[in-house]
Amino acid sequence: MTGIIFDMDGVLYRGNTPIEGAKQVIEFLKERKIPFLFLTNNSTRTALMYREKLRSMGIDVPEESIVTSGLATRLYMERHFNPGKIFVIGGRGLHEEMEHLNWGTVSVDDARRGDWREVEYVVTGLDTGLTYEKLKYAALAIRNGAVFIGTNPDTTYPSEEGIVPGAGSILAALRASTDREPLIIGKPHEPVWEIVREKLKAGEVWVVGDRLDTDIAFAKRIGARAVMVLTGVNSLRDVEKSEIEPDLILPSIKGLIDYLKTFD
Amino acid sequence: MTGIIFDMDGVLYRGNTPIEGAKQVIEFLKERKIPFLFLTNNSTRTALMYREKLRSMGIDVPEESIVTSGLATRLYMERHFNPGKIFVIGGRGLHEEMEHLNWGTVSVDDARRGDWREVEYVVTGLDTGLTYEKLKYAALAIRNGAVFIGTNPDTTYPSEEGIVPGAGSILAALRASTDREPLIIGKPHEPVWEIVREKLKAGEVWVVGDRLDTDIAFAKRIGARAVMVLTGVNSLRDVEKSEIEPDLILPSIKGLIDYLKTFD
Repeated sequence: MTGIIFDMDGVLYRGNTPIEGAKQVIEFLKERKIPFLFLTNNSTRTALMYREKLRSMGIDVPEESIVTSGLATRLYMERHFNPGKIFVIGGRGLHEEMEHLNWGTVSVDDARRGDWREVEYVVTGLDTGLTYEKLKYAALAIRNGAVFIGTNPDTTYPSEEGIVPGAGSILAALRASTDREPLIIGKPHEPVWEIVREKLKAGEVWVVGDRLDTDIAFAKRIGARAVMVLTGVNSLRDVEKSEIEPDLILPSIKGLIDYLKTFD
Repeated sequence: MTGIIFDMDGVLYRGNTPIEGAKQVIEFLKERKIPFLFLTNNSTRTALMYREKLRSMGIDVPEESIVTSGLATRLYMERHFNPGKIFVIGGRGLHEEMEHLNWGTVSVDDARRGDWREVEYVVTGLDTGLTYEKLKYAALAIRNGAVFIGTNPDTTYPSEEGIVPGAGSILAALRASTDREPLIIGKPHEPVWEIVREKLKAGEVWVVGDRLDTDIAFAKRIGARAVMVLTGVNSLRDVEKSEIEPDLILPSIKGLIDYLKTFD
C-alpha cells in the first residue's frame, strides 16, 4: 500500500489562496482509500486550526490527518523523555501542545523570579512574540543542563512582507549563545518520521513538497519517493543548483492525479 | 613611544566592583604620560556613561580616552560609507551614536509602515529590548540590499544571572535568516583598530584584556603585545586549551605596574 505525505504551505495553498487541483487530489485519495497525511514544519498553529483553514478552502480532512511540528514534538517527547518543566519559545500552537503534555511550563514571569533553574526542556519554534528575555532565559536554562529541542530548522519563511526569520534563526541565536546543538524534530530530521510512519501505515511512501532543504531532503532521508511541486519556495533553477534531487518534479499538485491513477 | 589599550569589564572592574590596582595603574600612566585608551566591545553605553562609571570608582579619564564599539562603528561609517538611513538593533549607546551621524534612522514603527525598504544600513549590537519585529525588519532590509554591520562578535557576556546572549547571538539569527555575513567593527576585527590607532598615537602597542577570543586575538591580529589578566571571563585552563596565545599572563591588572616601570 502506498501512502502520501503532503506539505501544506506552497503545495495545497499559498497564504490563504488554495492552489488549483488541491481539492481534487485529496478527494481522489479519499475515494480510492489511499492513505495520506498533511505534515507541516510550522508549529505556530494546532492541527485543529489547520483543519479549519483547509475546510475554508473546501478540503475536509479529520484533525488526525494533520501533523504539525509542534504536535510531533509533543508526541516525541512523550515517548522518549521523562516529565520535566518546559520553557517554550513559540506560537499558540506550540504552547497548546506543550501544555497538553501536562509536565508543567515555566513562563517568562516565572523565569524572571528564578524558575529558569527548574527548566528541564527548552522547546523552540517560530515565535513572532520573541523577546531578548525569552532568549536569555532559554540560554540560561540550556547552559544549566536543560534539553535543547527545536521544532523545525527552517531559517526563513515567506510572508506577505517578504522572506522573514523562521524558527531556525531563533535556534541559531541559541546555538551561538550556548554552544549546544538542538535536537530538531521536524523535516528533514528523523524524529518526525518516527511519529508519522505509525500514523500513515503504508509500505511505500511518497512525499509531496515545495522545499528542497526540508520536504525533498526529508523524502530522501526516509527512503520515500520525493515529489517536488513548483508552486512554493523553490524553482527549477534551485533544483539545478541543489545537490538534493527530487524523483519527480510537477508544475503543481494538480499533475499528481495522473500518477495516482497508476497506483493499484 | 608605547601605548596601552585596556579592555574594561573584567580588567578594571567586574560589574560595579573595581578590581584592585586598576586606579593605581591608570594614575601611574597619567604621571608618566604613557598614552592609553579604554576600548570595550559593549555598545549599549556611550563613552560619557563609561566616564561616569569609572569616575565613581575613582578613575578619572577624559571621555576622549574611551572608545566603545558603538563609537567605533559611528566613526568607521562616517569615514567609509555615504549617508543613508539606518535601522538600529541596539541599546541606548548605539542609538545615540547612530543619531549623532545625522543620516536619519528608521524606527520599528517606521518599518511597520513599509520604511524598511528605505534602510541602507542595518547596525546591530546587543539589544536587551530585542523583539521578533526588529529581527524581521532587519532581515527584510538586509535582503533588500542594506549593508549589514555588527558592532561586536561576542556571542555571550557574563551577567549577574549567568552567561547570557550577546550581540553575536543576534548577529547569528540575522546571518541565518539572510545568508549574509556582517561587517564586524569591534575586537578582534580590524575596523576598530583603524579608529583607535589614530587616537592612541603610539609606535608600540600593548593590549590588556581578559578574553582570548576578543582582546587577545585582537592584540595578535594588530601586532600588539597581548597581556592577559585572569580577573575576567577566561582562566589559565582556557589559555591551555586555546590556540590564541597571550604574550604575558598576569593574575590581575595590579601586576602591570612592575612591567610599566621598565618602559623608558
